[in-house]
Amino acid sequence: MDPVVAETSRVEESVAVPVPVAGSSARRATGWRKWLCRRLLGSAGNPSVCLVLDDGAEIRTDAGTGRHTGEIRVLIHDDCPLLALAADPIYQFPHQFSCGTIEVEGDLVELLGLINDARPPGRVLAMVGRLVSRPWRVQKGTSLWRARQNISHHYDIGNDFYRLWLDRRMVYTCAYYESQELTLEQAQVAKMDHVCRKLEIEPGDTVIEAGCGWGALARHIASCYGARVRAFNISREQIAWARQRMVEEGLSDRVEFVEDDWRNIRGRCDKFVSVGMLEHVGRRNYSELGSVIDRVLEPGGRALIHSIGRNQPRHFDHWTEQRIFPGAYPPSPAEMARIFEPHCFSVLDVENLRLHYARTCRDWLERFDDSAEAVREMFDEAFVRTWRMYLAASVNAFQIGGLQLFQVLLARERDNTVPWTRRHLYDHIEKSAVSGS
Amino acid sequence: MDPVVAETSRVEESVAVPVPVAGSSARRATGWRKWLCRRLLGSAGNPSVCLVLDDGAEIRTDAGTGRHTGEIRVLIHDDCPLLALAADPIYQFPHQFSCGTIEVEGDLVELLGLINDARPPGRVLAMVGRLVSRPWRVQKGTSLWRARQNISHHYDIGNDFYRLWLDRRMVYTCAYYESQELTLEQAQVAKMDHVCRKLEIEPGDTVIEAGCGWGALARHIASCYGARVRAFNISREQIAWARQRMVEEGLSDRVEFVEDDWRNIRGRCDKFVSVGMLEHVGRRNYSELGSVIDRVLEPGGRALIHSIGRNQPRHFDHWTEQRIFPGAYPPSPAEMARIFEPHCFSVLDVENLRLHYARTCRDWLERFDDSAEAVREMFDEAFVRTWRMYLAASVNAFQIGGLQLFQVLLARERDNTVPWTRRHLYDHIEKSAVSGS
Repeated sequence: MDPVVAETSRVEESVAVPVPVAGSSARRATGWRKWLCRRLLGSAGNPSVCLVLDDGAEIRTDAGTGRHTGEIRVLIHDDCPLLALAADPIYQFPHQFSCGTIEVEGDLVELLGLINDARPPGRVLAMVGRLVSRPWRVQKGTSLWRARQNISHHYDIGNDFYRLWLDRRMVYTCAYYESQELTLEQAQVAKMDHVCRKLEIEPGDTVIEAGCGWGALARHIASCYGARVRAFNISREQIAWARQRMVEEGLSDRVEFVEDDWRNIRGRCDKFVSVGMLEHVGRRNYSELGSVIDRVLEPGGRALIHSIGRNQPRHFDHWTEQRIFPGAYPPSPAEMARIFEPHCFSVLDVENLRLHYARTCRDWLERFDDSAEAVREMFDEAFVRTWRMYLAASVNAFQIGGLQLFQVLLARERDNTVPWTRRHLYDHIEKSAVSGS
Repeated sequence: MDPVVAETSRVEESVAVPVPVAGSSARRATGWRKWLCRRLLGSAGNPSVCLVLDDGAEIRTDAGTGRHTGEIRVLIHDDCPLLALAADPIYQFPHQFSCGTIEVEGDLVELLGLINDARPPGRVLAMVGRLVSRPWRVQKGTSLWRARQNISHHYDIGNDFYRLWLDRRMVYTCAYYESQELTLEQAQVAKMDHVCRKLEIEPGDTVIEAGCGWGALARHIASCYGARVRAFNISREQIAWARQRMVEEGLSDRVEFVEDDWRNIRGRCDKFVSVGMLEHVGRRNYSELGSVIDRVLEPGGRALIHSIGRNQPRHFDHWTEQRIFPGAYPPSPAEMARIFEPHCFSVLDVENLRLHYARTCRDWLERFDDSAEAVREMFDEAFVRTWRMYLAASVNAFQIGGLQLFQVLLARERDNTVPWTRRHLYDHIEKSAVSGS
């Protein structure tokens, strides 16, 4: 049986093959591994899961209970470095899962929800963790050169891969499920419209987009709102795809995709928008991003920043930083303020779409799981595991509030053309049509 | 003619009596005063206003032009210390206006709008300013004892005074003109409803209000939303009035007004609300305010903070701090974050109601002007001038963006009962009924 399929949500079937223990040395080893497993459960807040070793030993929080229906089982194979796992579970758990030395029977998102309360292990184990885990540190810089490396690491791994599980417009940011019944496809369009309404984009407006992904928003603004858009991105693969679609959709006269860094944005615009780029900007560059907005935005202009964030300043976990998003950082509200306070922008509106991102990631994970076979053919088994862990962890992080999604709307301090209320954001909805809110 | 009436908006009638200059000493004095007037205009960005000295001399930015229709004239009497005014105009202008040594012919709000761009005077004059102006510094503390002094200074000067020009419910915070046609009375009710909708107040909820003014919101929540409210305030006069109205409205079983400091709030609540108190809390106490919210709020609760703020950290001007709101401070968004980030609250929603406060202050100023005679009888001429300056300066500050009004809605990090969208804030409005937004 394919272990990847075994990990898939709600699959409940054991693949652990009990291995008989022979000599006393093996018994001691098993005793040591069992002790580490109990430490592991303890540091995860004693969740109701079962750790299963290759010899068939089952370690549960409540040792007296047996297997129950729906129990999530974590298979810890002999080649999993249990000392490292117990000492640094936040890094090692997703890492070993990617390596295949850990497998999960049951819902991975649910498991991650159960072990949310993971506390740092005791002092000795933590010291061991620093020694045996995380052999190298990721390069965290966000210089012009490093930014290209960071972005390429995640976004240049192949448009065909992303097409397998993103919506057909290739929007790789939080969707807006205006009503809970919306599909991912619809919710991504609703998100783009929500953003455009907040920005009050009108025909003839000049729009600058910083970090445009595959260009869906830029093309949507041009085709549905009649504005001219210049969109920046340093991902070569994304820009190539965006340009191709722009030509196919006959938007070449209104949209320009520029393969360049946000720091090099020049010109002037009525509306500045950045959806899902701030995470890659680097905290030390927030004020410079504010300077760019200040430089390009017309006096009556609006700027919208859409970003993953946190309630308190804290880095992404080490595994995400190293394996998924090198150089990325989810800012807290006060950290985001470093963009606009030095330049005296007025915060008009902040909306938190955390639960919409949990739902988005859940939709992505479902589509990803459906395409696992194709992904495996494109890459390999470890890649599939890594991405499943990343998507499941994202669902969980937004579900439990470890990550937030902030949309911040800005105007210049003296701009009195700002909307009187926010009612225009909801005027289009038929009173009886939407039951989701 | 009563000089107070002369200052009233849009009155355009000179009260300056030209005094003939006699000897060369007087001429020199006049030359010196004229030079200071030109410095004054220069430091105010050379606005299109006319300074008039008691000898009839008129100083304009463009010396060649004469008086034109609608020109605002600032009468600077001989007893106005012009050196102090030129050296420290931001403090001395409202101060001398209060003293009556400066009078304004024309719209005071318009004048303040024209001199927005006041820059600090040159280095020498600024040094002089420090010597001759601001003889004493205000006590800025916000200790328990000092807070009572600060609040009493502004809010205990007589309920009869505030009844002259506030709405009949006595709401002394930014109104919400859901539609531009609303009166002040209606807009204050709309504000309370907007706040209640954001907080999702339901029958049976327990609500704690910190800084309740004359208790209008507490009574509104109890009477219209069926919740139980405990409301705190350290202003003796306000609490007395609030209790009287509570009894009259038959709400004694659902509302409790507590004459105590927010720091002493105990118990638990489903909803925590504070409208217009944060300005008096003191920056160093923001984290403690967060601790209080953290201590009292139930897991699924909501908290709303409504406060004057700024786009960048900056104190109120010295005159406002000294004469109007001792110890008060308008926080920037990042400063407000010190309330909720240490306690890991999620920011669900931030709305900026700056223009609504400009409109509110304009309505107050109009009512105040209509009641000037009664105010003069209660207090004196200087009091009338001081309050007119304060209200006009407030209109102007919100109009030009020097002050902002932030409504921040908070929830606990793991609370997944937060609303899916913000549409419920606008559902009650008939699509065709409101033309204001």
